[in-house]
Formats: sequence, structure tokens, C-alpha cells
Amino acid sequence: MTQIKSVAIVGGTHGNEFSGIYLLKKWQQHPEKIARESLSISTLLANPKAFEATKRYLDADLNRQFRTDLLTDPTLGNYEQSRAKAISLYLGHKETPNFDFVLDLHNTTSNMGPCLLLVQQHPMYNLMAGYVKLKMPEVNISRDEDHKSRDEHHLLATMGKFGVIVEVGPQPQGCLRHDILEWMETLTGHILDFLELYNHDQLPQLPESVEAYRFLSEVSVPLDEHGERAAMVHKDLEDNDFKPLKKGDPMYITFDDEVILYQGEQTVYPNFINEAAYYDKNLAMSLSEKVTIDVYSQS
Amino acid sequence: MTQIKSVAIVGGTHGNEFSGIYLLKKWQQHPEKIARESLSISTLLANPKAFEATKRYLDADLNRQFRTDLLTDPTLGNYEQSRAKAISLYLGHKETPNFDFVLDLHNTTSNMGPCLLLVQQHPMYNLMAGYVKLKMPEVNISRDEDHKSRDEHHLLATMGKFGVIVEVGPQPQGCLRHDILEWMETLTGHILDFLELYNHDQLPQLPESVEAYRFLSEVSVPLDEHGERAAMVHKDLEDNDFKPLKKGDPMYITFDDEVILYQGEQTVYPNFINEAAYYDKNLAMSLSEKVTIDVYSQS
Repeated sequence: MTQIKSVAIVGGTHGNEFSGIYLLKKWQQHPEKIARESLSISTLLANPKAFEATKRYLDADLNRQFRTDLLTDPTLGNYEQSRAKAISLYLGHKETPNFDFVLDLHNTTSNMGPCLLLVQQHPMYNLMAGYVKLKMPEVNISRDEDHKSRDEHHLLATMGKFGVIVEVGPQPQGCLRHDILEWMETLTGHILDFLELYNHDQLPQLPESVEAYRFLSEVSVPLDEHGERAAMVHKDLEDNDFKPLKKGDPMYITFDDEVILYQGEQTVYPNFINEAAYYDKNLAMSLSEKVTIDVYSQS
Repeated sequence: MTQIKSVAIVGGTHGNEFSGIYLLKKWQQHPEKIARESLSISTLLANPKAFEATKRYLDADLNRQFRTDLLTDPTLGNYEQSRAKAISLYLGHKETPNFDFVLDLHNTTSNMGPCLLLVQQHPMYNLMAGYVKLKMPEVNISRDEDHKSRDEHHLLATMGKFGVIVEVGPQPQGCLRHDILEWMETLTGHILDFLELYNHDQLPQLPESVEAYRFLSEVSVPLDEHGERAAMVHKDLEDNDFKPLKKGDPMYITFDDEVILYQGEQTVYPNFINEAAYYDKNLAMSLSEKVTIDVYSQS
């Protein structure tokens, strides 16, 4: 059976997402809080310069730089492109990773609660989803593992043999909330416990299946003829991440006070609703569909 | 009786506080929404370069530059120091203001709801407080008008003959929430209605007195020996702006998981709790005391 020995816990991939950054500081003072008998755990502050500047990034989003073609292109030399290559030296190449497991800690301004984001496929992730839901039912599990191959994935969390993202919100950028940090710490603890139990083949009885949300598409905010935002997310949708959005539900309101309704036939489950970090790309939210994870599935 | 004829509505004094900025855009398309018969209304985007950069400011906080000694010092030449002088040309000097009333629109990441911030003294503000509470009881009224003289005040809102700040939250920086924008638009409308009725001496019967919160002090987050944050605001206090904080209530939690209690003898009413914009100064919150405004008082 697969064994997970080495774990890298990464915080500050985005410099203004403070929970992971301050948890790293906490765990450096108190390594016993993340220690597990079968695991060798390292921590890494991914983007120290962006943290210093209280910015998501200086030149480019670091968490979009981990595609193999980008990592092997020496002409891409801005700060985050360089930092990604430096991190890949530490974490290893995707074909020969130095770590069995990479856990990347993120915050969102959206009301997503504690989330486990699965970005690769393996039976172990199904078991992890079952374990996490058993221990912390309020966790939302998001799947985005069947859209891209490993080499094509730009996420830092794909630099380990295995890897997941922990995403917790709502928290404003450059701000540290006790409740959000606590959720992140608790969820991280359950993931480490899972790995420990998995290594010892001592997992408890898990639910046969758990609910998850599978990524469908990103949605742009309505723009005017000058390419400027013409509307904002409607207050009936705001904060309702992972809740159903049905045809005819209010989705936006324009600055002319006109309500724009969701027109899709499929009921969807938005997340990253009104995320501040996506304003530069005019994204309003992501849409997901509800799916079931068979916890003991072998695929 | 005092008459208010000219009104300047200012948004984007902080470039990442989006409600006022987008309301200005909206009102430029729909000037009828802020038009009042007795008022001549102008709008101003105060810090366009900070808005472009989605930052509070480029070089220095613009809303700390409007002290008379700073405005008259030609050696202070960074972007916001220059922009403040440019704005003072438009709004006029404090002794000879071009506008009877300046309304400065702000957002906070703190859970302060819709707030009216009074920063100068005059019987008209007492009447305004009474009118606003009559029309919109959820408004919190904050007073900070007896700590500084007019010339010593660094706020843009002190650049008119009269002026107030509208402060609405919680909203992450660089994010636009429908509910928050709606609160700001509604509160601004009530203030303009008040000025109109005041000019015509047609105010309705107002409550004799209203509750308000008078600024006492700013409080720093606990720091470690390296000057770094050693704690965060406790979750029991987070989001409880304008609620009583009593001796023995949890105030912070350290990264060693120790709860720090409020030790003051006086029950206080914190606001700007965990405001993201104040992290660079390590401020955790402001403390206020509850006071009563006599609506028909002549002082």
C-alpha cells in the first residue's frame, strides 16, 4: 500500500492570506501540534516578499506557475516565476517529487467555510474525504481533479506525489480571524491524523459516500461597453457558497438597479462568490455541480 | 439659520474601499438619485491612482493629510501629500471652504454596519443624528469631534464648512458587496434628505436624544519581543463592534493559545475591530464609550 512519509505544509502562497502564514509561525514555536509518529513534516512560507508587502503577489500569481512547461522555461523571470522555480528545487520535479504529500493553505474572502480542495485523483483522496467529513461535517469538499493532467496543473499543491489545498473563508485579505485560523488548524490536524491512520492501516469505519462539489466553470461579472463592471453579485446570492442556484434566482444587480437572473437549466452550486482576489480578472464566481464521492472506490 | 447649498460627495479616499467609488459611478449615470432641490451636489473620486492599483494608498494615507500645517508645507511631495493639496484647491482652504458640506464615503472590514461618523461640533449634527436614527435605526453614530481642533484634523471630511464620514462594513478590501453598497446609498440619501429639510426648516419631529459612541483610544494588538503580532482578536469579540466589552471578557488569543481578558474597569464599546487597514500600525481596535446626543441641543 502507498505510504506517506514526508509532508510539506505550505503557507503564504498568496501573501495576503494570513491564516496559513500565522499557523506556520505558530507551528514553528509548537512543532508538537503538527507532529505525527509516521510523518516527517516540513513547513514553507511560499511567498515571503508578497507577505511583506501584504499583497497576493508582486508580479504574477504564484499559484499559477507550477505547470511543467512554465517551470522549465528559463525566460520566465519575474519574482513569482523565479520563486516557483526555487520552490520546485525544494519540492522536487513533478516526476520525482521530494515530498509524498504537499498541503497548501489558503484563504478566501468568500463565505466558503472550511474546504478541502482535491486537485488530483487517487483512491486515497476518496478515503481522506470520508475521514474529514466524519470528523468535521461542516467541511465542504471541492473536486477539480479531472480537468487537467498533472503536468498541466499550475497549482503548488500538485508538486508533491500527493497534495491537497485547504481553503478557508470568509476572511478579508491582510486580516487574521481567530475563527478562520481555528478552522484551518482543525482541518489540517484531521488531514495529518488521516495520513497517520492511513499509514498504519488503522482508519476507522468511514461513511460509504460523501457529498462534494465538482468544478464546472468560472463566470464573469457583466461588463459595460468600456469593459468595466456593470453589476455586482446580488445580495441574495452573496455568502451562499455551495448552496443551490436555480434558474430564475437573482444572480447580479446592475448599477441601473436591474436584477439579472440565473438562466441556466442546470441547478449549480457556486463558490468563490465575489472573491476579492478575482476582481482583476472580472470573475464573479465559480460554478460547481454536486457529486458523490464513493469513499471506498478504487479510482 | 445656517443654510447648506453646496455639497461635495467624495468616494475613493481609500482606493480599495469600493462602495463609494462605485456609487460615484452610479450617480454619474443617474444624477437624479442624489439630486435635491436646495442642494448643488458635486462628486469627487479622491484617490484615482490608489483605486487603479486596488490599494488603500500609494505612498501615505490620504485621509491623514488634511491638517492645515501639512497642506501648507510644500516639502511634503509624495503622491497623497500632493493629491491632498490638489483636493484642497478644489474644496477650498479650511478657513474659506468652497463647499458647505463634505460627505466622505468609506468602507471598513469590521462588522460596523452603516455608521455616521461625526468629526466636528455644531447643533446641526445633533439634528442630523436624530433624523438619521429616526429613518434608519440600525445606523451606529460615532463621535470624535472634541479631540482635535479643525486645523489639526487630518480628515478630508473636515475640508467643508460642515462634513461627515459615512463608514459601512463589513466589506473586504477590493470587493464590492450589494448589501454594503445599499446601506451606504440609503444612509447617504437620508443625509441629503436631512440637508434639504433643514434648509427648508421642515424637519419632522425628532427623538429628543439618540445613542452614540464617543472615541476614547486606539488599542494595539499584543506584540512579541521582535515587534511581531503575538495574538489575534478573540473570536468572542470579533464582529461585535459597538457591543459592550466588560472587564474579564476575552479580548485576544495568543499563538500559544492563551486567552487575554479585557482588564479595564470601564465597560467600553469597541469598533474597527480587527480592521485590515490598521495592521500596518498593529492596531487591534478602537475603544468608545456610550454617550447620548441631545438632538435639540444648541452646542
